[in-house]
Amino acid sequence: MIVLFTDFGLEGPYTGQMKAVLHREAPGVPVIDLFADAPRQNPRASAYLLAAYGAWFPAGTVLVCVIDPGVGGARRALILEADGRLYVGPDNGLFELVWRRAAAARVFEITWRPEQLSASFHGRDLFAPVAARLARGERPAAELLSPELIRRADWPDDLAEIVYVDRYGNALTGLRAARLPADAVLIAAGRRIARARTFSDTPPGTPLWYENSNGLAEIAVNLGRADEALGLETGSKIEIAA
Amino acid sequence: MIVLFTDFGLEGPYTGQMKAVLHREAPGVPVIDLFADAPRQNPRASAYLLAAYGAWFPAGTVLVCVIDPGVGGARRALILEADGRLYVGPDNGLFELVWRRAAAARVFEITWRPEQLSASFHGRDLFAPVAARLARGERPAAELLSPELIRRADWPDDLAEIVYVDRYGNALTGLRAARLPADAVLIAAGRRIARARTFSDTPPGTPLWYENSNGLAEIAVNLGRADEALGLETGSKIEIAA
Amino acid sequence: MIVLFTDFGLEGPYTGQMKAVLHREAPGVPVIDLFADAPRQNPRASAYLLAAYGAWFPAGTVLVCVIDPGVGGARRALILEADGRLYVGPDNGLFELVWRRAAAARVFEITWRPEQLSASFHGRDLFAPVAARLARGERPAAELLSPELIRRADWPDDLAEIVYVDRYGNALTGLRAARLPADAVLIAAGRRIARARTFSDTPPGTPLWYENSNGLAEIAVNLGRADEALGLETGSKIEIAA
Repeated sequence: MIVLFTDFGLEGPYTGQMKAVLHREAPGVPVIDLFADAPRQNPRASAYLLAAYGAWFPAGTVLVCVIDPGVGGARRALILEADGRLYVGPDNGLFELVWRRAAAARVFEITWRPEQLSASFHGRDLFAPVAARLARGERPAAELLSPELIRRADWPDDLAEIVYVDRYGNALTGLRAARLPADAVLIAAGRRIARARTFSDTPPGTPLWYENSNGLAEIAVNLGRADEALGLETGSKIEIAA
Repeated sequence: MIVLFTDFGLEGPYTGQMKAVLHREAPGVPVIDLFADAPRQNPRASAYLLAAYGAWFPAGTVLVCVIDPGVGGARRALILEADGRLYVGPDNGLFELVWRRAAAARVFEITWRPEQLSASFHGRDLFAPVAARLARGERPAAELLSPELIRRADWPDDLAEIVYVDRYGNALTGLRAARLPADAVLIAAGRRIARARTFSDTPPGTPLWYENSNGLAEIAVNLGRADEALGLETGSKIEIAA
Repeated sequence: MIVLFTDFGLEGPYTGQMKAVLHREAPGVPVIDLFADAPRQNPRASAYLLAAYGAWFPAGTVLVCVIDPGVGGARRALILEADGRLYVGPDNGLFELVWRRAAAARVFEITWRPEQLSASFHGRDLFAPVAARLARGERPAAELLSPELIRRADWPDDLAEIVYVDRYGNALTGLRAARLPADAVLIAAGRRIARARTFSDTPPGTPLWYENSNGLAEIAVNLGRADEALGLETGSKIEIAA
């Protein structure tokens, strides 16, 4: 299975052209849209989302990850092998948290280049063909890299920010719920928010946080929209009170 | 064929994770997005949309239907077998109109449970695996239910409300056009709206209603947007004048 | 491969129903969403987008193209065979630029009709079944047309307008970059915009234009949004200064 994690959107041409390449070069392999609206041009926030959601897929999955504001510049192109999954994408920190949480990982710089490489769409021209080859069991030309070259050691283990707002207005943080004290209170927009098992445990209109289905602490309002009620958007800062 | 009818959106993680489960557990079965933007958290309006659009698919189709504001609470999980189609989803009225319009129907409570069931995402953890089993011709553990237990007998046969606004600004009602008098006038936002065969039969800028390609009465403005011209949105009430 | 080029959106019922028809009538043929948000109800702007993006696909591709404000009226239904690709859609100018740029082309009027043809959804009822037949290697009933009957000879070879704004706020023009002088300056919203190889070559906040990955001149702002910075939207006029 090939999984797409991008900020490209589905309706315009970018995801479609990537899928055309994937279907042509890895026929019969299912292609899944995981996120087409990851934090736009924001590899740091995206890194926490990717680490939480990528780990849900079984070993053998190839994840094509393109949040790539530096496309056309000098950043490397990478393959990260982590716990049996293969992540393909730019060297801009996007894989930092996957790397940090993996039991076993190796990183490669992609040296293979297509005959035609546009300046602005490496997703289609470079990352998709590489992902297709990996899904077929081939190894495109790549060199083992020293991990230090790609690390973002100064990034935190968990991110006390909103990394995604879903269509219900729920605001996902970059915090793993299992790493928070059971009685942790989150502070967002000046409001103290207590934990609940699920939003239906809380009175209508009240903000709450809970462990979402991929392990992140998520802020919601029962029968309401947390984004509107609390003024939250991707990038909003959160505090943790004991 | 497996058909998705949800309020999840396509770009975020929910539809993608459901498709990952479906492709893994029912390989080779096509998965179709029918609606990913059904009326949000609104099983009643969604029920009229589902009845109109689900019936377009042939017998043998499995429809996974997740408008599920009560997820994590005590509501049942259902399989509705209606005229040879299989509908999988929560017990919150979503299947009421499918049931009511079916020539033959039976309903089952799903008793099968996955090893891991999140509190907030039964679409991925429960409904998708059940749908995959049904698409493979298997029967997950389920018990025949007395239909009275799931009915919403007080809901009308047709809903005089807007149940969907499409990207052209056309406003779909929950009314079947074939049940309306040929010369019925709809009243929306205080405006009297006459019937036309299609919008190109009407002067530019004029509101009209017509029978859409799935049998619902739909309000449009030729070369304009009915939602903006008339102030319509999902939930807006309509009246029928003879 | 079957490629969809429409203004239908992905989340509502239209694209899903088309794909259901395509999967049923051409099982196993991959279906790719190229654009689901082509310029709405605007065949002229869409024609320049289609010519630029359709040509990226290899010979043998079937493209179903439905920007169709005249559906239900008297416009013809067409198959355009151009450089080995097959384009299926309405006769409203949408294929004008594909025709004009093709080395070899023929156009056919589709005379085949389905048993049931709705007044408002020929994409599902007529164009998708025809595309499926073509993808299977069959020829639905159609008659060779004199090209003069479908031409829009008064349309320009390149369109000095914005034809698409992507989710990064980049504004695509209908101008082929290769036809512009190397030092061409574009004028949009009164601002003079110089060419760059890619946006990372330009200071943050500065507008620039470049040849995008499908050959169109595209206006962007490095680390910003050109649509907001310059007030651009689909239909905005552009001028070319030497």
